[in-house]
Amino acid sequence: MFKILDCTIRDGGYYTNWDFNKVTVSEYISAMNNLPVDYLEIGYRSMPMSGYLGKYFYSPIYELEELRQQSSRKLVIILNERDVKPEHLNDLLLPIVGLIDMVRLAIDPQNLGSAIKLAEVIKKMGFEVGFNVMYMSKWKLYNDFIENLRGIDGIADYFYMVDSYGGVYPQDVIETIDLVRKYTNCRLGFHGHNNLELALVNSLTAVEHGAEIIDATILGMGRGAGNLKTELLLSVLNTKFDIQLDFNALEKAVNAFEPLLDKHKWGTNLPYMISGSNSLPQKEVMDWVTTRFYSFNSIIRALQNQRNKIKDN
Amino acid sequence: MFKILDCTIRDGGYYTNWDFNKVTVSEYISAMNNLPVDYLEIGYRSMPMSGYLGKYFYSPIYELEELRQQSSRKLVIILNERDVKPEHLNDLLLPIVGLIDMVRLAIDPQNLGSAIKLAEVIKKMGFEVGFNVMYMSKWKLYNDFIENLRGIDGIADYFYMVDSYGGVYPQDVIETIDLVRKYTNCRLGFHGHNNLELALVNSLTAVEHGAEIIDATILGMGRGAGNLKTELLLSVLNTKFDIQLDFNALEKAVNAFEPLLDKHKWGTNLPYMISGSNSLPQKEVMDWVTTRFYSFNSIIRALQNQRNKIKDN
Repeated sequence: MFKILDCTIRDGGYYTNWDFNKVTVSEYISAMNNLPVDYLEIGYRSMPMSGYLGKYFYSPIYELEELRQQSSRKLVIILNERDVKPEHLNDLLLPIVGLIDMVRLAIDPQNLGSAIKLAEVIKKMGFEVGFNVMYMSKWKLYNDFIENLRGIDGIADYFYMVDSYGGVYPQDVIETIDLVRKYTNCRLGFHGHNNLELALVNSLTAVEHGAEIIDATILGMGRGAGNLKTELLLSVLNTKFDIQLDFNALEKAVNAFEPLLDKHKWGTNLPYMISGSNSLPQKEVMDWVTTRFYSFNSIIRALQNQRNKIKDN
Repeated sequence: MFKILDCTIRDGGYYTNWDFNKVTVSEYISAMNNLPVDYLEIGYRSMPMSGYLGKYFYSPIYELEELRQQSSRKLVIILNERDVKPEHLNDLLLPIVGLIDMVRLAIDPQNLGSAIKLAEVIKKMGFEVGFNVMYMSKWKLYNDFIENLRGIDGIADYFYMVDSYGGVYPQDVIETIDLVRKYTNCRLGFHGHNNLELALVNSLTAVEHGAEIIDATILGMGRGAGNLKTELLLSVLNTKFDIQLDFNALEKAVNAFEPLLDKHKWGTNLPYMISGSNSLPQKEVMDWVTTRFYSFNSIIRALQNQRNKIKDN
């Protein structure tokens, strides 16, 4: 059976600026104790940054100690590889040894080399290490990246394919796995986005082709169009894989985040569908659409041209 | 290229009791004139029934005449096979010859025989005829039904597989097509529901395996968890099949129904996911969940038992 990592707090934080109230978090943690979920990613660890960023962007020790007491699951934090220097690792990670089980790195494929260097240090501290490598739909363009995957064996515990644009199809998942498998034996993971409502089928396809861990969030809470919905994945596991499921606990987890969904209204919509199917950054599409100075057609044309490196007229 | 039938007004009517205001309908029709959609199903035709049912449950002649003038697309109405007797057909259909291009029948697989009899009459009146046969996830249980499909050749223009419970997976679509193909050469269609967010991938799978027409609705408006979203299908067509798309028109179609989505809030949710993945009638799950006299776990257990014909304890 594959493993499930729920990253509602970490990925949902894009909508709440990483603030969540205590009751929400505690209902979530307690529901997850009764659900077949293996890992909970509860936030970032970060050096002080400018601008306001909430508690789960920094994940202070007192909070992690409390979560460690409440949760019977493995706990995970993530680091933005591009913001972290090797000399930060002692400050960021030594105090959380024993509180956190896995450290993940969010990685631009062009920075794989420096990510591997960070990961070696993190691994030695005793953490499991996850590589979350973004932009999987563009990996074929980066030959170096693919070949350098040889360097992750023995360092990364999980190598995640991240569908950053929410634009990959099951066939793309299969081809990417085949490609990656030529260079690494690392356990594979998949982190889907739901722009085209393909997060579930892409995740199931990944599992069928050997992925061993899948990311999901309650109600799909997450950047832009959101993620694979944990409640959907678990409902499917219950019937397709015959996994026992405490529906009361699942309902409690869903209820905990429903007020936030009413407020922030994440989920897919026409602009996200277009950004997904064109592999365009969804933030750009949303910025243009929100401004509404131009017609929809001219926005799409401009963004498609930009992607194709044709100068706009 | 496969054909697209948009049935927003007909299937969305479950939420509005088949009332839609004039502006909504006219924005919809005008947007559809600029989109690559072949058929618009605009409602039922019905003999007078008890209880209030809105305009598009009856689709009166004056309305169809107006739509015929406004729309450059083929227009479709649907009949509930179980409510229509052969002696009703003259009243229901003769007045709309020339206004409506296709008549579809919503058919319980156990009534295929009487549906074929109705269809023969309808075909002779000059309409295209569509068979929308429900409960595709259970067809394997009905041997008679499958073998009697020989009788539809030359009568049905389209034979639709309807995923009534929203619980089929791409593999089920493939197997059902293989099964059906043994008995009929009729052009195939697929009508998906989105309980498990598989409507798109199931539809694309159906097309890949020979289906020639796909149903969709704007914003997925439709019973329960809703349908394949027209805007999603068209966005995917634009990039995957290189079909030109007027995004301004698509946006107008979406905008026309957004106030209704805010009001009725259709779409999938935990109870619909559970009904889908268990092939349970979603109405039953929703009725139980809304009452909330029992816990979620006991509701699911009761419904699963009922499906398995085990007496509840």
